Amino acid sequence: MHTTVGIIGAGPSGLLLARLLHQAGIDSVVLESRDRSYVERRQRAGILEQATVDALRAAGAGARLDAEGLPHDGIELRHDGRATRIDFPALTGGRRVWVYAQTEVVKDLVALQLAEGGPLHFKAEVTAVEGADTDRPRVHYRHEGREKTLTCDYVVGCDGYHGVTRHAVPESERRTFERTYPYSWLGILAEAPPAYDELIYAHSERGFALASMRSPSVSRLYLQVPNGTDPADWPDERVWDELDARLALTADPGRRLIRGPVTQKSVLPMRSSVTEPMRHGRVFLAGDAAHIVPPTGAKGLNLAAADVIVLARAFAHHAKTGSTELLDGYSDTCLRRVWRAEHFSYAMTTTLHTDPAQSPFDTRLQQSQLDRIATSPHAAAELAENYTGLPLDV
Amino acid sequence: MHTTVGIIGAGPSGLLLARLLHQAGIDSVVLESRDRSYVERRQRAGILEQATVDALRAAGAGARLDAEGLPHDGIELRHDGRATRIDFPALTGGRRVWVYAQTEVVKDLVALQLAEGGPLHFKAEVTAVEGADTDRPRVHYRHEGREKTLTCDYVVGCDGYHGVTRHAVPESERRTFERTYPYSWLGILAEAPPAYDELIYAHSERGFALASMRSPSVSRLYLQVPNGTDPADWPDERVWDELDARLALTADPGRRLIRGPVTQKSVLPMRSSVTEPMRHGRVFLAGDAAHIVPPTGAKGLNLAAADVIVLARAFAHHAKTGSTELLDGYSDTCLRRVWRAEHFSYAMTTTLHTDPAQSPFDTRLQQSQLDRIATSPHAAAELAENYTGLPLDV
Repeated sequence: MHTTVGIIGAGPSGLLLARLLHQAGIDSVVLESRDRSYVERRQRAGILEQATVDALRAAGAGARLDAEGLPHDGIELRHDGRATRIDFPALTGGRRVWVYAQTEVVKDLVALQLAEGGPLHFKAEVTAVEGADTDRPRVHYRHEGREKTLTCDYVVGCDGYHGVTRHAVPESERRTFERTYPYSWLGILAEAPPAYDELIYAHSERGFALASMRSPSVSRLYLQVPNGTDPADWPDERVWDELDARLALTADPGRRLIRGPVTQKSVLPMRSSVTEPMRHGRVFLAGDAAHIVPPTGAKGLNLAAADVIVLARAFAHHAKTGSTELLDGYSDTCLRRVWRAEHFSYAMTTTLHTDPAQSPFDTRLQQSQLDRIATSPHAAAELAENYTGLPLDV
Repeated sequence: MHTTVGIIGAGPSGLLLARLLHQAGIDSVVLESRDRSYVERRQRAGILEQATVDALRAAGAGARLDAEGLPHDGIELRHDGRATRIDFPALTGGRRVWVYAQTEVVKDLVALQLAEGGPLHFKAEVTAVEGADTDRPRVHYRHEGREKTLTCDYVVGCDGYHGVTRHAVPESERRTFERTYPYSWLGILAEAPPAYDELIYAHSERGFALASMRSPSVSRLYLQVPNGTDPADWPDERVWDELDARLALTADPGRRLIRGPVTQKSVLPMRSSVTEPMRHGRVFLAGDAAHIVPPTGAKGLNLAAADVIVLARAFAHHAKTGSTELLDGYSDTCLRRVWRAEHFSYAMTTTLHTDPAQSPFDTRLQQSQLDRIATSPHAAAELAENYTGLPLDV
């Protein structure tokens, strides 16, 4: 089997890329190691930047997003008994974000792809990507009990941090930059209305807490916990009590943590990672295959979308003009945005979390920076611009 | 001997306070352990914020500053082969800074004080401050071979980090927040014109470098060096060569590192420290006695000036109305500004220096943040506002 662009991974980046290529008249095949049900249920991000929403709409995947997604015009930061609203449109010239879960984005894109896109194979486990330096890179995979090979003009790895595509870039050409954090997130999904209309990010000496949501009736809540935490040590009651203590909402009208059945509970590690370059020969990396951010800044899904938007434009430009200029610039173009998001995610994370090794001096610096964001239009705008996402050509 | 305000230390904060009190008709006595020549020659800061300049002018100490000081409307940041100008007036609504050395500020204030102020005793070594909780705190000191006692209505410690006044606040009431850095500055004074009209802050994988100046014919230059560096290991030639390598000016017209006789060379440690509260009973702390910043953000002298401006207003208010309200608010008022400056100094320091333990990931974050300052008006304004100094009532 041969295709123009072999796409490995049917997460949001692989699916959106396949869709954008389809619209540009470029053939692709998507290979996904898991089954459909797994990829449509995997809990990940839930905040979409303006540019991601625009791309999903342009891809024809905007109908349910527009009907069910929740546009958010700000977030609330809480520290030291103080609540600060960050007004996105006012600070950024009209930009906002949407609450719409990755699971829903994936469902919409899978349905579109199956209805009118190219081949999308679930349970197709890629074992190796070869020939990045040749004109015909090959993807070896197992599907329906047989070993198969897909030859491609180009291969795009959308297969995440643990995927195989990254290894098609020779170690001698590849540089990985990493940072781990001395804490994780304990996340729950609960059948309960959100604590507030907007997300609440809370700095507390007990540790960070985040009150988010998936819909008007489903809350998504997070607590900073030590690395290695066993969710079994956090019965629901303990989670709710700790959220109450850290969010400290009781004095604020309109905000109330509402308890409800917990339908999911898991521990998420926090990691920053970037692989450079994001392209070797005819193999490209996109999304988590190339970079990981801690979830604090809600950048992971949006960076993945930005990568494939840039890449789809480059493939279309190449198909139309024969020029590889945009393909050649892909890695540098994306890495500028990636490093900006890495810095922002790092800064949000380290400003809001309590490092077990941090000194009282460090805590005062965090409080001073949060005070600054609360009082300086420039500091608030710097947060709002990064949170709502930079324009796609930056 | 009795006075209204006993001032310990004849650095810029003690001298400016004495002057401001004199103008308000409030008696004071200044006790300084060193001799006049020492305090007038001690090399320290060289950048004055707008608010500091305004206060010196109002104190009658602006004539030579206005004639000889160099107003600066920006700085240059260099990283990764890129030079970025931060335009202070454009980004802050007209604020700027002045290059005028601390030695000159001290000379001007000493001359004023001796000409028309209250007593200023050099070589008066304070051994203890007692009775902070009483109505008549006492300062014990040695002067002209005799043990003496100054009784005061109030005592202000302007005697620096190693001074005795801090110890008049009981340990049980006092909290000190500190951070040290894994590098120092090697500073030189050279009889050579500055490399450029404005200060140049250079991020380099070899370590930070700063090209500053004291006057149109005297350069002040700094290199990041490991802690424990012996200046004897840095002969002049080595210092100049390293400055050349880190500043990397050769390709830029108008910028040239000019070598000249080195008249002073020393190693400065980098430390952050804050003591809370800045007042106990009738004893107040000001300037370095209460807080230390690393020199990267040029905040030390300006924070000291801000402290005594706030304090002089509070004494004047008390003398006029009998109300201790402003005196009671002194510590909280100053600490807000102090922590802002601590955060800024920490951020400037850690963005521009190379920590020997930093990872390649950390280096990329620094570069991304410097890129951001170079391209985002909000990020540049955030730097400019902090550098030129916050308004005095914040």
